[in-house]
Amino acid sequence: MKIKTINGGLCAVKGVQAYGIKEGSKGLALIEGEGKVTGMFTANKIKAAPVKFTEKQLENGRISAIIANSGCANCFTGDQGLKDAEKMAELASSALGIDKAAVAVASTGVIGVKLDMGLIERQLGEVVKNLTSDEKGSTEAARAIMTTDTFHKEIAISIDIDPGTVVIGGIAKGSGMIFPQMTATATATATMLAFIYTDAFLEDEVLKRSLNAAVEKTFNMTVIDGDISTNDMVLLVATGKSASVKIGEADFTEGLTYVCQELAKQIARDGEGATKFIEVQVKGALPIEDTRAIARAIVKSPLVKSAIFGERADLVCGRIIAAIGGSAITTTGSLGLDLSRISIKLKGKGQGKGNEKENENENERENLDDKEFLAVKNGEFMDLSQSDLAVEIMSGKEIFIDVNLGTVAEAETETEARAWGCDLSYDYVRINAG
Amino acid sequence: MKIKTINGGLCAVKGVQAYGIKEGSKGLALIEGEGKVTGMFTANKIKAAPVKFTEKQLENGRISAIIANSGCANCFTGDQGLKDAEKMAELASSALGIDKAAVAVASTGVIGVKLDMGLIERQLGEVVKNLTSDEKGSTEAARAIMTTDTFHKEIAISIDIDPGTVVIGGIAKGSGMIFPQMTATATATATMLAFIYTDAFLEDEVLKRSLNAAVEKTFNMTVIDGDISTNDMVLLVATGKSASVKIGEADFTEGLTYVCQELAKQIARDGEGATKFIEVQVKGALPIEDTRAIARAIVKSPLVKSAIFGERADLVCGRIIAAIGGSAITTTGSLGLDLSRISIKLKGKGQGKGNEKENENENERENLDDKEFLAVKNGEFMDLSQSDLAVEIMSGKEIFIDVNLGTVAEAETETEARAWGCDLSYDYVRINAG
Repeated sequence: MKIKTINGGLCAVKGVQAYGIKEGSKGLALIEGEGKVTGMFTANKIKAAPVKFTEKQLENGRISAIIANSGCANCFTGDQGLKDAEKMAELASSALGIDKAAVAVASTGVIGVKLDMGLIERQLGEVVKNLTSDEKGSTEAARAIMTTDTFHKEIAISIDIDPGTVVIGGIAKGSGMIFPQMTATATATATMLAFIYTDAFLEDEVLKRSLNAAVEKTFNMTVIDGDISTNDMVLLVATGKSASVKIGEADFTEGLTYVCQELAKQIARDGEGATKFIEVQVKGALPIEDTRAIARAIVKSPLVKSAIFGERADLVCGRIIAAIGGSAITTTGSLGLDLSRISIKLKGKGQGKGNEKENENENERENLDDKEFLAVKNGEFMDLSQSDLAVEIMSGKEIFIDVNLGTVAEAETETEARAWGCDLSYDYVRINAG
Repeated sequence: MKIKTINGGLCAVKGVQAYGIKEGSKGLALIEGEGKVTGMFTANKIKAAPVKFTEKQLENGRISAIIANSGCANCFTGDQGLKDAEKMAELASSALGIDKAAVAVASTGVIGVKLDMGLIERQLGEVVKNLTSDEKGSTEAARAIMTTDTFHKEIAISIDIDPGTVVIGGIAKGSGMIFPQMTATATATATMLAFIYTDAFLEDEVLKRSLNAAVEKTFNMTVIDGDISTNDMVLLVATGKSASVKIGEADFTEGLTYVCQELAKQIARDGEGATKFIEVQVKGALPIEDTRAIARAIVKSPLVKSAIFGERADLVCGRIIAAIGGSAITTTGSLGLDLSRISIKLKGKGQGKGNEKENENENERENLDDKEFLAVKNGEFMDLSQSDLAVEIMSGKEIFIDVNLGTVAEAETETEARAWGCDLSYDYVRINAG
C-alpha cells in the first residue's frame, strides 16, 4: 500500500461536486456527492442547532449533500435556530432536486446570532450555478467556510492497492476555539469543520470505526486555545464508486488518518495569531489515554506557548514539566512518573526553513535530525541559554518537542501520541479582543 | 460576630515576626511564630522539592518558622533540590535558634534551576537582623516573595467575638501559572504561595477543615492562565495566643475564608498583564462541584478573557455559553442544562471606577446595581452592540458576570460559586514570552 498526495481536494473523489462563495465574513459552501455517511460532533454540552439537526439527519446512514455557512454559528438561537438549520437543508434539497433527509448542515461563526436566511438563499443560488467537480470547486468550498482562518485547508490522497486505487479528499476550517474532543455521538471542540469524501466501498461499521480511530489521533490532538466549540463537526462520506477495489480496514484507516492529520496540522499552523507551528510527541507512558493527555496538556499550556513565541529555550522545558505534572493523568506505566527518567528533545529546522512547504510527507520528523538538542536528559536540565543550537531551533517556524517519560519498563509496550498546536502571540489576543 | 479589616498583615497577629529582602529577581522572606500548622499543596503530579520537604515537616503538627525564596522554584532539581530545601530549613533553624524540624520551606520562580545557596545564606543574614513584629515586617516579607507580581499582597482582619477578638493575617504571592487546585494532601496550581497566621486556639482537625473549606472556595477558584504550578502552597499557623477567646468553627472558617478570598482576589487583580479584574458568579446548578467547574471554566477561557480585554460585550456572552458547555460537568440539577433557562448579567462600575480601592468589603457586588445589564435572558441574547450600558460596563476595570443556569427546580436548594480571574492582554504574552 502506498499513499500519495494528489491535487483536487474533495473533488479528487470521483462524482463529488463542490463550490462556495465568501462575501465579507459570510460564506456558503455546498458539496454534492451521494454515499454512506458517518460523523463525529462536538463534546460541548451545548450544541449548535446544525449539530443537533445533522446528528439526526445521519441516522439514515446516507447523505447526498452538505451545506455549510460561515459567519454565524446558529448556536444559542432557540427553536428558530433549529428551524433555520432545517430550512438550509430544504433550500439545498430543492436546489439540487434531492431528498431533504439526505442533506447535512454545518455552521461556524459568532454564537448567539440568528442566521440571515435571505442571504443564505441568495448565496446558495450563486453556488449551485457554479457547482463543479474541478479542483476549483473544492478550493472555493474550503474558502467559503473560513472564519478567522488565513488560508483554506484541503488535501487529497490516492492509496494504491494492487489492483486499483482508492481516493480520499477533504476540506477543513479552524483557527480559533480549537480543542476538538469529538466522539461518535456528539463530541468535539473549537469550531473546526471537516468534510471528507472517499470513493472506497466499506461496510458501515468499518467507516465508523475508521473515522473514530483517525479523529482520536488527529483532530482531537489539535489545540489552539483549549476552548471547546459548540459547532465542531467531521463528516465522512463514502461514495463506494471504487467498489471493485478491495481495501482492508487497516489500510483505509491509515489513509484516512493521513488525511485527517494533514488537515489537523493545517489547522494548527493557522491557529489564530500563530507565528510558530508546534508538534509534541510523547512516548513512554501507559495507557494511551495518559500519553495523549500529556501531549495535549503541553501543546495547550499558555506558558509553553508563550515561551515558544518568545523563543525561550531556557523557559520552555520547565513549563513543559509543569504541564506534564498538571495533566489529567491516572497511571503512567509500571515505573511511574519519575523526574529522573524524563527526557525532552527540541527539534526544528532553524530560522526561515519552516514556511517552505506545508504538505510534507509523514516522515518530516526524520529529516530534522541535523537540528536537534537534548534539552533534558534523565531529569537533568542542560544549560540552554548557552546553546547556539537551542537558540537556532527556537528561532524556526516549526518546533518539535519530543518527550520521553521513561515510565515504561522494558517488558511493557510503550504508547506514543502526537499533538499539534501553535504559539501564543500578541495577535491571538488582538484577533480575539475583536 | 463582626469581621473588620485591620492593618499589619501577618504581623497583626501577636507574636509573629517577619521580614524580607528582594534583590533583582531573587528574594527571601522569613516568618517567625510558633503554633499548630496545617497546609495545602499543589495537585501537580510533579512537585517541587520544597513542597515535598514541607509536607514532611508538617507531620509534626507544629512549626516555628517559614523560610521562602523567590526567583528559583527549586523544582526538577533532583536530589540536590531536596538537600537544598533541607539546607534552607537548617539555615533558618540556626539563625533563629529553633528546631530544624519546625521550619517550613517554600520556593517560587524558574523551574529546572538549582538554588544559589550562597545567596540565600547571605540574604537570610540580612533578614534575620531585621525581623520585626511591625507592619513593615509583613510588607517586606510579602514583597520578597513576589515574582512577576506588580504589587505585594497582604491582609489582616479582626473578628469580634463577645468577649474578645481573634486576629487572622496573611501574605500571598501569585500572578502567572495560576490555577490552584490544592488538596489537603498535596494539591494546588500556579505558583501561588500564601502564609496565614492566626492567634486563635483551635483543635487540629478544626484547623484543617477550616483551611480546606476556605481554599476550595477561594484560591482554588482563582485562575490566571490555567497552568498548574509545581510549587503552590498555603500554610495556616495558629499560635493559640488568644486561647481565652472561644471562637466556633463556623465563625473561624468564615473569617479565614474572608482572608483567603481577599488574597485570592488580589492575585486575580495582579494576573500577568491584567487590565481588568473578572468575577464570575454561577447559580442554579447542582451539585456544588458542577457549579464551581462552570465558574472556573468561564474565567479560564482565553476567548472570554480576550473578549473582555477588547471590551466586546457582543462577543463575550456567546463565549461564556461555549465555556459553560465545555466545562467538565456531570449533572446540573433536575432540569438539566437547557439553553432556554440560562440568563447572564453583566455588572460593573464603568470606566475608571475600578481602580479606586482594592480591599472593598464583601458586599461590593451589592453596590453595583446601578450598572448592570441583563445580556442573556432565558436563552435570548439581547442586542448588546446597541447598548450604551453594556459598553459602559465593559469599559470598566472590574467586570462581574452573573450566570443563572436555571437547572434547579423550585424544590431543590441551588448551589452558588464564585471564581476570579483577569482578562488576557498583550502584556500576558509579552511577560511570558520572556
